[in-house]
Amino acid sequence: MTTLTIIPIHGIPEVRPGDDLAQLIVDAGDLEDGDVVVVTQKVVSKAENMLEEIDPSNPLSHKPLVEQESVRIVRRRGELIVSETKHGFICANAGIDLSNVERGQAALLPEDSDRSARRIRDGIRGKAGIEVGIIISDTFGRPWRRGLTDVAIGVGGLRAIVDLRGTPDALGREMMVTEVCVADELASAAELVMGKADNVAAAIVRGVDPEWLGDGSVHDEVIRDPAEDLFR
Amino acid sequence: MTTLTIIPIHGIPEVRPGDDLAQLIVDAGDLEDGDVVVVTQKVVSKAENMLEEIDPSNPLSHKPLVEQESVRIVRRRGELIVSETKHGFICANAGIDLSNVERGQAALLPEDSDRSARRIRDGIRGKAGIEVGIIISDTFGRPWRRGLTDVAIGVGGLRAIVDLRGTPDALGREMMVTEVCVADELASAAELVMGKADNVAAAIVRGVDPEWLGDGSVHDEVIRDPAEDLFR
Repeated sequence: MTTLTIIPIHGIPEVRPGDDLAQLIVDAGDLEDGDVVVVTQKVVSKAENMLEEIDPSNPLSHKPLVEQESVRIVRRRGELIVSETKHGFICANAGIDLSNVERGQAALLPEDSDRSARRIRDGIRGKAGIEVGIIISDTFGRPWRRGLTDVAIGVGGLRAIVDLRGTPDALGREMMVTEVCVADELASAAELVMGKADNVAAAIVRGVDPEWLGDGSVHDEVIRDPAEDLFR
Repeated sequence: MTTLTIIPIHGIPEVRPGDDLAQLIVDAGDLEDGDVVVVTQKVVSKAENMLEEIDPSNPLSHKPLVEQESVRIVRRRGELIVSETKHGFICANAGIDLSNVERGQAALLPEDSDRSARRIRDGIRGKAGIEVGIIISDTFGRPWRRGLTDVAIGVGGLRAIVDLRGTPDALGREMMVTEVCVADELASAAELVMGKADNVAAAIVRGVDPEWLGDGSVHDEVIRDPAEDLFR
């Protein structure tokens, strides 16, 4: 395995509805073929105008949006709602974000984050002729462990899960189950250089295994079938 | 934020009980002050002789060990047991590993992974005079999302969670809750260069924010208090 480099992309301006994210990334980043570009959900939601007006004087005014974006409440405690969103994610407040958006606005998740990622991938290919993988990342909590980590909510041109089942281990025997969610690991790695307050909305991961690039989907690969999920 | 580099450490030999991991890492890696070194649980368990004999002809012979290492079964389906281990982790098969160990052996989790990490940190400081942070990583599944990711089960000389609560966001307003589990994100990042079958047992993450280095503990910072956990 070779060295990976995680490079923050500075200089993406404040994103507004209708902005062409592929163009902003090409202009601000020094991309190379085979890079994976991790883009935060927030700027994708802004560019796609997934913004709703809320009453800034009411700290609960986004709650009706949480209900609207959810298909099932998984847990509720006080003001915290953990729900399954219409996209299939299980997360707090249906992924709705009030930080780093204008006061009086809430940012919903993209309608289809895999599609958003493919569009950015296609845009970069068309504008710059560079072949990259794209991850849309978001910051989720998780059961049992404190602290948030970034995960992938959409991919384009990247396999979300790499299946190492059956690959011999270092002692030469068949391995049992090692399906690694490289999309989530790449999203987490990128988060380390993004820094919540620094306005770095995207990062490049350079040096990934070329076999990971290809057609992938968070929706199809990562979201666990409810029938096989022990925790719904 | 600056660039991060993730560097696999090649050349650590097959680890045996009693081996001095700090020495093996100093010999094989080109460490610098401020690096974070991520070490896989398996080699820590081997060095600490957390190995148990099992009957290699019986695919279920490790199950009594799973019961022994668990304090509570959380879910059970077929042969899969998700339990809370005596260390406080919730994971499959109590973290017991049968791959990459000798046939007829099972590797249990270290007794106290934070202590293991601190010992490796102290050893590297003593032998080479280099000040690093250490993460012991392991590969866990998670609810709702398919695919495994690496997380931190112990840290030494590194804060597991960095609290960005109250840091102004890029638009200048107070953020709500952003406690980032940088230890888990660093473990995931390192996994990307380790490759299950390549026998790379450790990796260096270079370029981390110096403020993340300091006294930390996965046990104290990351394991969620059962009283505040919605998913037990």
